[in-house]
Amino acid sequence: MAVSNIYAVILAGGSGSRLWPLSRELHPKQLMKIEDNYTLFQSAFIRLVNCVDDKNILSITNTKLESQVKTQLLEMQEKFCRNSTYRIITEPECKNTAPAIALAIKYIEKLQKDKNITDDAIIVAVPSDNLITDNEKYCHAVSEGIKLAQENYIVTFGVRPDRTDVGMGYIRAKNNRKIKTVVPQALKVESFIEKPDLETAKEFVESDKYYWNSGMFVFKASVMLAELKKYQREIFNIIKNSDISSQTPSIAYQDYKDMPDISIDYAVMENSKKLAMIPLECEWKDVGSWEAVYDISTLDDNGNYLMGNVLDLDSKDSLVYSTSKLITTIGLKDTVVVETEDAILVCDRNRSQEVKKIVSHLKERQDSVQYDHKTVYRPWGYYTVLNEGEGFLTKCIHVNPEAKLSIQLHHHRKEHWAVLEGRALVLKGEEYIELGKGDSIDIEVEEKHSIQNPYDEPLKILEIQQGDVLDENDIVRFEDMYGRV
Amino acid sequence: MAVSNIYAVILAGGSGSRLWPLSRELHPKQLMKIEDNYTLFQSAFIRLVNCVDDKNILSITNTKLESQVKTQLLEMQEKFCRNSTYRIITEPECKNTAPAIALAIKYIEKLQKDKNITDDAIIVAVPSDNLITDNEKYCHAVSEGIKLAQENYIVTFGVRPDRTDVGMGYIRAKNNRKIKTVVPQALKVESFIEKPDLETAKEFVESDKYYWNSGMFVFKASVMLAELKKYQREIFNIIKNSDISSQTPSIAYQDYKDMPDISIDYAVMENSKKLAMIPLECEWKDVGSWEAVYDISTLDDNGNYLMGNVLDLDSKDSLVYSTSKLITTIGLKDTVVVETEDAILVCDRNRSQEVKKIVSHLKERQDSVQYDHKTVYRPWGYYTVLNEGEGFLTKCIHVNPEAKLSIQLHHHRKEHWAVLEGRALVLKGEEYIELGKGDSIDIEVEEKHSIQNPYDEPLKILEIQQGDVLDENDIVRFEDMYGRV
Repeated sequence: MAVSNIYAVILAGGSGSRLWPLSRELHPKQLMKIEDNYTLFQSAFIRLVNCVDDKNILSITNTKLESQVKTQLLEMQEKFCRNSTYRIITEPECKNTAPAIALAIKYIEKLQKDKNITDDAIIVAVPSDNLITDNEKYCHAVSEGIKLAQENYIVTFGVRPDRTDVGMGYIRAKNNRKIKTVVPQALKVESFIEKPDLETAKEFVESDKYYWNSGMFVFKASVMLAELKKYQREIFNIIKNSDISSQTPSIAYQDYKDMPDISIDYAVMENSKKLAMIPLECEWKDVGSWEAVYDISTLDDNGNYLMGNVLDLDSKDSLVYSTSKLITTIGLKDTVVVETEDAILVCDRNRSQEVKKIVSHLKERQDSVQYDHKTVYRPWGYYTVLNEGEGFLTKCIHVNPEAKLSIQLHHHRKEHWAVLEGRALVLKGEEYIELGKGDSIDIEVEEKHSIQNPYDEPLKILEIQQGDVLDENDIVRFEDMYGRV
Repeated sequence: MAVSNIYAVILAGGSGSRLWPLSRELHPKQLMKIEDNYTLFQSAFIRLVNCVDDKNILSITNTKLESQVKTQLLEMQEKFCRNSTYRIITEPECKNTAPAIALAIKYIEKLQKDKNITDDAIIVAVPSDNLITDNEKYCHAVSEGIKLAQENYIVTFGVRPDRTDVGMGYIRAKNNRKIKTVVPQALKVESFIEKPDLETAKEFVESDKYYWNSGMFVFKASVMLAELKKYQREIFNIIKNSDISSQTPSIAYQDYKDMPDISIDYAVMENSKKLAMIPLECEWKDVGSWEAVYDISTLDDNGNYLMGNVLDLDSKDSLVYSTSKLITTIGLKDTVVVETEDAILVCDRNRSQEVKKIVSHLKERQDSVQYDHKTVYRPWGYYTVLNEGEGFLTKCIHVNPEAKLSIQLHHHRKEHWAVLEGRALVLKGEEYIELGKGDSIDIEVEEKHSIQNPYDEPLKILEIQQGDVLDENDIVRFEDMYGRV
């Protein structure tokens, strides 16, 4: 197979605050499974495999999400029987799409250079949080987009709105005039309008000139760089002057930190004269709010979507989603109820866009409940905080087969471990001890220790931490198979 | 002080399903604190002390609630500096008010007989779940009631309705005609109407002839027995033929089981010709539903009552009550949200009467969440179930000063205890071991053990249970200071 100059970039760094409390800054919606065996991010990957050489599919995310994206890509690797790992570009901090796309272009140019390819790269940039069902039509549209990008257009993909939605960006097609090109259905773009008010959105939906911006773009690297130079000189300059290695695909924190926090829509699309739009013919759903989740859900006879441990009496047109506790509802109408281990949302369904205001409030008051779930993912598996109280904390620790936690010690806490499932190889001081289900062991303050699972079965351990300071940062690492020393 | 033939009986056996999930079958609303330092039951006790000799105040409850009622009465004993314990009559199973009142009469007659008092007893029977603020007016009304009862009336107390409420019982006064008696404000009663429909309730509230039934009654023991004989022969016969001791005030389970499960209102009040009513002039609130709790709460400028960890955006006229997790709300109207450790209720405020339907559903499907909280009260203190999973269970155990758990063993589980607060004296096998904060110990399957707190400070212990069968019934008791062997 000839080396291709066509790349895809999956934008997977979003914080997904609008599906809070199910999504969190550290567990955003693109990394969640919604009505499928794969996460939204993985589904985006699978779709692209039909249009682009899978070795050329890159993901870009921020450092906090990197290990989760890595885990999800490992599953893709297995699915497509690849030996080499799929690449992740990491943003040193969480920024909007313009800096992310600029960083991706920089990295792709570096790859091209390393391979001595002089052809300009064509880049398909896609969000990681859309629901698209018809892969064939999707792939056809992307192929047409690639053709159009060869002719130096920046190609957008428009979706015909089927409802008024103020949470969307809209593309106005220029009198629906087609472009004379190889792609017959391509339209000229007159303007980009981000999140209009309700009145304006209604007009847009009634008119036939407006499309939702799907957030997917295809462009030549050089064309996008030229537009950034023209309309976003700051981003252009930082990217031009920064170094990137093909080994650890990222740029210096200091450089990235100075990037304006702006979307590619505001940065380029609202200004560029090189835009074309291809109407997306397949079903396309943005899962940008609880209202949107409701819209894509299979409803019962009362117009309800009831998920998990729910007991309802007489509610209508409501979404009730329980992840752990029993939720009982009586006589609700157009209401969203979402329960997670540590937070509950009860919200007028038509106002679910405002969840992001709640998340901002929580962020302001530094409530960790906006940031992370009680369940925290680590390279070796995950843990769930069960209970916290003064002087103690309990966790359930899940260690994947053939994984191990680092060799470490704590200055301020002792730990007690009880094996609930599987077998553990425990390092206590200098001694290795095997524990089976039902066994337990104490680790003293300042004692070197490690939990390891060299076996085939998953290992589940209940941990009690006791001490005056119980802090994830009270950890001294000696050895770590995931390079965290 | 002369021995008095006037008794008060606090009816404290109700299951309070309408304030679920805050109230539970094993933690009903009368035993909860609502807007006060005392529970509703304790407040009822305190009110009665002004009208009746406190030694003659009896409480009646069912066996499941007995230990909680006992604990609450102990606090009353301390408050009123009494050495002798206040008496509790126990119903062998949970029944409505008619059997409870019959049982109380039987016991009071026995007391009178033991004391060689031939005078007929006058009994003031009161619910344990009302909110009444003006003790002086209340006490005056009760005294008037006692006078009227001496004249062989069964005295009810009516409250002028200030809103339409279909959850109430109504008393229709006979053309507001007064009774020619020592009590000038007393009225004749024409009829009793339990829980009318909305239309009827509206008419009642507009008319000046209707009063809410406060559920308080005063009567001569002989008069009520005669009415029971006349209108509820079954109850009368069982009571007449059963034995009761003044030591353990209860009757045989077999007898009580056969009692019709009927309220005193249906059993007697709807039929009796001996009724009189005294209008209750003081503020009186029934806390019979979340709507009622909303009505008695101090509201903010948006008409909301937000309690606990709540973050609201723009809701109106709603009650949001969190006991543990964060609840966030957006744009609610007339909604009740109540969160407890294991269940959540979200309900149209005007339909909060229907919570009892939810509780029935849960009962049908044998969901323990209708029955008890994660926190369970015991004679020695209480415990909270923190987490349950396959093969393990964690609890936080609170042991009162100078209390101890029984000496026991388990056939199917081992236990690990970590002291979080205070000091513990632990029996492990045949050995007593002292543990301080931060210490921990393992108890093996079949090993005799006990947690004791002979110290002044409360003791808090974290327990991990591990085993294939984790059941409160897997317990063999050897010694117990609360007579549970």
